[in-house]
Amino acid sequence: MSSTLITRIGTLVTNDPALGDGPLGLIEDAALVLDGGTVAWAGRAADAPDADERHDAGGRAVIPGFVDSHSHLVFAGDRTAEFNARMSGRAYSAGGIRTTVAATRAATDEELEANLTHYLDEALRQGTTTFETKSGYGLTVADEARALRIAARHTEEVTYLGAHIVSPDFAEDPAAYVELVTGEMLDACAPHARWVDVFCEKGAFDGDQARAVLTAGMAKGLVPRVHANQLTYGPGVQLAVELDAASADHCTHLTQADVDALASGSTVATLLPGAEFSTRAEWPDARRLLDAGVTVALSTDCNPGSSFTSSVPFCIALAVRDMGMTPDEAVWSATAGGAAALRRTDIGRLSPGARADLAVLDAPSHVHLAYRPGVPLVREVWRRGTRAV
Amino acid sequence: MSSTLITRIGTLVTNDPALGDGPLGLIEDAALVLDGGTVAWAGRAADAPDADERHDAGGRAVIPGFVDSHSHLVFAGDRTAEFNARMSGRAYSAGGIRTTVAATRAATDEELEANLTHYLDEALRQGTTTFETKSGYGLTVADEARALRIAARHTEEVTYLGAHIVSPDFAEDPAAYVELVTGEMLDACAPHARWVDVFCEKGAFDGDQARAVLTAGMAKGLVPRVHANQLTYGPGVQLAVELDAASADHCTHLTQADVDALASGSTVATLLPGAEFSTRAEWPDARRLLDAGVTVALSTDCNPGSSFTSSVPFCIALAVRDMGMTPDEAVWSATAGGAAALRRTDIGRLSPGARADLAVLDAPSHVHLAYRPGVPLVREVWRRGTRAV
Ligand SMILES: [Zn+2]
Ligand SMILES: [Zn+2]
Repeated sequence: MSSTLITRIGTLVTNDPALGDGPLGLIEDAALVLDGGTVAWAGRAADAPDADERHDAGGRAVIPGFVDSHSHLVFAGDRTAEFNARMSGRAYSAGGIRTTVAATRAATDEELEANLTHYLDEALRQGTTTFETKSGYGLTVADEARALRIAARHTEEVTYLGAHIVSPDFAEDPAAYVELVTGEMLDACAPHARWVDVFCEKGAFDGDQARAVLTAGMAKGLVPRVHANQLTYGPGVQLAVELDAASADHCTHLTQADVDALASGSTVATLLPGAEFSTRAEWPDARRLLDAGVTVALSTDCNPGSSFTSSVPFCIALAVRDMGMTPDEAVWSATAGGAAALRRTDIGRLSPGARADLAVLDAPSHVHLAYRPGVPLVREVWRRGTRAV
Repeated sequence: MSSTLITRIGTLVTNDPALGDGPLGLIEDAALVLDGGTVAWAGRAADAPDADERHDAGGRAVIPGFVDSHSHLVFAGDRTAEFNARMSGRAYSAGGIRTTVAATRAATDEELEANLTHYLDEALRQGTTTFETKSGYGLTVADEARALRIAARHTEEVTYLGAHIVSPDFAEDPAAYVELVTGEMLDACAPHARWVDVFCEKGAFDGDQARAVLTAGMAKGLVPRVHANQLTYGPGVQLAVELDAASADHCTHLTQADVDALASGSTVATLLPGAEFSTRAEWPDARRLLDAGVTVALSTDCNPGSSFTSSVPFCIALAVRDMGMTPDEAVWSATAGGAAALRRTDIGRLSPGARADLAVLDAPSHVHLAYRPGVPLVREVWRRGTRAV
């Protein structure tokens, strides 16, 4: 692989404070050298070393590729009519997530994989170069394991979420479902996943059940992350911190004790404004978390029920308008923050040694991601040093 | 020009109730024949006549191209730092719209035209096939006239907005500025414009001044439209109806008398949610207007100060989430509604005789424009029967 000099960058976001200004490590009139799939050099264009190839960014901004650390993309079925009815104020009798579970179980492997790659390509075109995705629409041993096998062909960041909801097959005996999730299903799933997750919420899994799911996964070598405190207050966030989960996701309803717990530990708070947008819910308070010193990530939660957006730029615009984040903070959270939520140091930054995953924006600065809401500003995407879009 | 059959359309939005279901005239498993730049036939794919060329929509939705009836795209200069400061809670001393006026005056014709075509291309890629745009950042006879001349090279829908704000050069004598706008400036501008507009708002032009601007323009053959009731209650909406303006734009603060006036006349209410999004303002109440029988259009208000989005799909998603519109109503308002606001019957619909301006979505239905917020779903754009994107 030959080296490439990307030059005439308007604003370069390195996310390395040692390389440039502020937490984003901003460099104006910048250049980058990519070599062997990693960043070899970053700095002022005037100081750039030579490379085999030259690519002119034409004054445009370059940012690290987005790290979308929370999505649910192994699914089948269509819930457009349900969404349409909800947003039109009409009653709709179908079963929400159960519709997706039934369709996912009924789908062939090929259908699931085609659906997954459709949304991954869509996300890539919008600048997402790393994504996490989860099982959770199979809810049987075989269906959960195949979801993870399929996901693992497309990303290293695969999460076992057998504990998404209590399977409808166990509606009368949730304890037996927890036993399955922590036993036979875990045995079948653990080889294909890096992470274990649980939806700790009223109507899904309570604190004790969530603890059982996470600790069983940890015993099998999986690292915990938790769907916590989305719909109401609950034990999820404090459990996540206690178990040193990589991330507590949603964090919409937080007590001061929850915020204090996050601030005292290393668990990242992953905020998912697409969910609040799509369900007309209260926004999470990013400002409160940031002011308390909590590390905040920003992701899409892309799924067909409660947040069917794959657009990280859209989430950035919402975070700035409605969650108290500055444009700089939102861009950091969608790149370096996502990397932190996945405990990765090789992505989410553009300093020497990092993976050469980046997006070129059709704008002179990263601020335009918030300033120009809804506009598809990602013009080029490079992954591991090669132009992908 | 040869005829083209677009077949295997998932859902076709015709906006012709005689052709299909509901106000959108929806046809499933549809086809369209384009001939000589217009729609020759629309119906079920199984019934489609032959054509010279065939194009397979692959089950995707087809909608009329968006009609963006309100934008401000003849400008120069950069207000990113101002936006960033506002959204970061930092003080910023520069002069808002005056920054844009100074930069626009200082720009060459070539710079203004390059900027305009950049944003028009961006809008076209997002499905906008007709757009209106305005002067209003020149505020001298020569600068307003050249803005309109430049705009007229790119669209038929050109609006004279010398009365955007009182020119800073006339800060001590607003009456003299109104005299200029209704006199020498109008004489220079009228030949290049179809519409006359005024920003009727506290701090800009009051009801009497607005009436003077609009009636002077009408005497020169221009058709009125009004920036009305955006920032607070005021006389703009009722003045618009009284003068039979094509549209009252913004309509964020409406009394019951304003709503009644709109319902009694033919003036369209054009809602611009990008402005409320970008300025964190209260949303206009589309539901109230629709329930009163008012025709509602949805547009971007694209401008570098208060709404720097060119994305009609983004406006649709906001209208559905926050303004009480159903997905169907929002799609109608962004197509047929925009056409009504421009008093056009040849666009905003896909029935025989209409202009063959359309967008193919990367989704099976138009509902996905609201269901998948922020996602760039426009995959192809056809303008006057020819593939443009
Ligand atoms: Zn989730
Ligand atoms: Zn305007």
